[in-house]
Amino acid sequence: MLTQHEIQVRVRYEEADPMGFLHHARYFAYFEMGRTEMLRASGGCYRQMEEEGILIVVVRAECRFRKPARYDDLLTVRTTIDRVTPAKIEHRYEVLRDTQCLAEGRTTLAVIDREGRVRRVPEWMQTPEPPPKETLA
Amino acid sequence: MLTQHEIQVRVRYEEADPMGFLHHARYFAYFEMGRTEMLRASGGCYRQMEEEGILIVVVRAECRFRKPARYDDLLTVRTTIDRVTPAKIEHRYEVLRDTQCLAEGRTTLAVIDREGRVRRVPEWMQTPEPPPKETLA
Amino acid sequence: MLTQHEIQVRVRYEEADPMGFLHHARYFAYFEMGRTEMLRASGGCYRQMEEEGILIVVVRAECRFRKPARYDDLLTVRTTIDRVTPAKIEHRYEVLRDTQCLAEGRTTLAVIDREGRVRRVPEWMQTPEPPPKETLA
Amino acid sequence: MLTQHEIQVRVRYEEADPMGFLHHARYFAYFEMGRTEMLRASGGCYRQMEEEGILIVVVRAECRFRKPARYDDLLTVRTTIDRVTPAKIEHRYEVLRDTQCLAEGRTTLAVIDREGRVRRVPEWMQTPEPPPKETLA
Repeated sequence: MLTQHEIQVRVRYEEADPMGFLHHARYFAYFEMGRTEMLRASGGCYRQMEEEGILIVVVRAECRFRKPARYDDLLTVRTTIDRVTPAKIEHRYEVLRDTQCLAEGRTTLAVIDREGRVRRVPEWMQTPEPPPKETLA
Repeated sequence: MLTQHEIQVRVRYEEADPMGFLHHARYFAYFEMGRTEMLRASGGCYRQMEEEGILIVVVRAECRFRKPARYDDLLTVRTTIDRVTPAKIEHRYEVLRDTQCLAEGRTTLAVIDREGRVRRVPEWMQTPEPPPKETLA
Repeated sequence: MLTQHEIQVRVRYEEADPMGFLHHARYFAYFEMGRTEMLRASGGCYRQMEEEGILIVVVRAECRFRKPARYDDLLTVRTTIDRVTPAKIEHRYEVLRDTQCLAEGRTTLAVIDREGRVRRVPEWMQTPEPPPKETLA
Repeated sequence: MLTQHEIQVRVRYEEADPMGFLHHARYFAYFEMGRTEMLRASGGCYRQMEEEGILIVVVRAECRFRKPARYDDLLTVRTTIDRVTPAKIEHRYEVLRDTQCLAEGRTTLAVIDREGRVRRVPEWMQTPEPPPKETLA
């Protein structure tokens, strides 16, 4: 797995609130996109993992909002893996406009199966190894 | 099935756009809530229908926006069944603030199964009969 | 100001994700609804505050997700004011299905004006006094 | 103005519903992104237009949904200007996965000012001329 990855996101009109700012709840969706694209850049594919019955759920999320992002801003979301154990995955996020950091977030993820039972984090997500062939997109 | 039903919806902050208006795409989610609650008021439950493998999909949707709804407005969504055939269900919607009509919509729905195959609209949805026991909430 | 308030929220279809669960980012919008309705129940109105140039922004938000909420669940969002100072307002939230706690959140809010300058939290929000007449809905 | 433009959009997890399909209301947000990016590609900027008091509102929207788009699909949204008069702008949209057309939409837009009064569509939007300097991003 890569341990850091960046994506660009343009703030959509429907994501901005009456102040003209990106609504605070939307940052968590941006974090999710950051994780998904980091996984893809590492050779994995979350949709395929779900099809194989490996569901990744968010068990904790937080964000500090320092400066508002506005409608139509082109933002960078930098996603960093902080720690992976058999039980959980911890990510950090920075939302940047040019070089200015607008927000910083953290999430903790766990793995469950279709019946909702907690499962171990797949081995390849705990190492710098590429994902196994069956989860290649 | 009831053929007309009304719900109240308060416009949420995150649903309003930088003009302070309810974003136009959100009306279609309000229509869906109107349908769901009309079904519930008729004694049915869409979640249970899905669990039984009966998926209702939107095949056509339209809306005319006459006056903007604003953040925090308390709206009435009036849902009317226009026509039900074995192949499709047609609804009409009015979004009202007090007695003023802000928007009018229409949708056409079809029924599919988990494999995506088109299925007949259940008999009880085509009649004024109550839904069968197994779809009672 | 009231210091605790409860609202009921039905999970919408469009708020549920491919797992059938309420998407984690949506909880933060529910918290916002909880705050807004607690303010309304206290005799205030956030829309009117914004019209008067008093903007309340989220500077920090977090949530622990214990059990998933599902599409069509009828949830209770319990909002509690933890602390109000001239600089910030801290809330706590519990999301309940029947008596089971599904998620717990916290937010920290600050007050700014139209130019983005930090302002003091209005006196009446710091006390059990009702809001002044001009912010009555 | 350009009269046709294409963008790529990846379906986000939070945009997919319990069937795993892109929720039907979301297509209208994709259409809006298509219009915004066509304007940008023509040398204009909608955010700047709004700052200058030219608000573009949707007065009618429709969509036919032929095949579902799924979570994580990479879609093409093709936006075409059908007709521009001093009173309104009509667009057409196709949502494609590879060469397969999943949905077709139409919108009618009008121009208003900050007070909600209907205004004429700017001259440059009615012609193949580039937008005036003050609306260049």
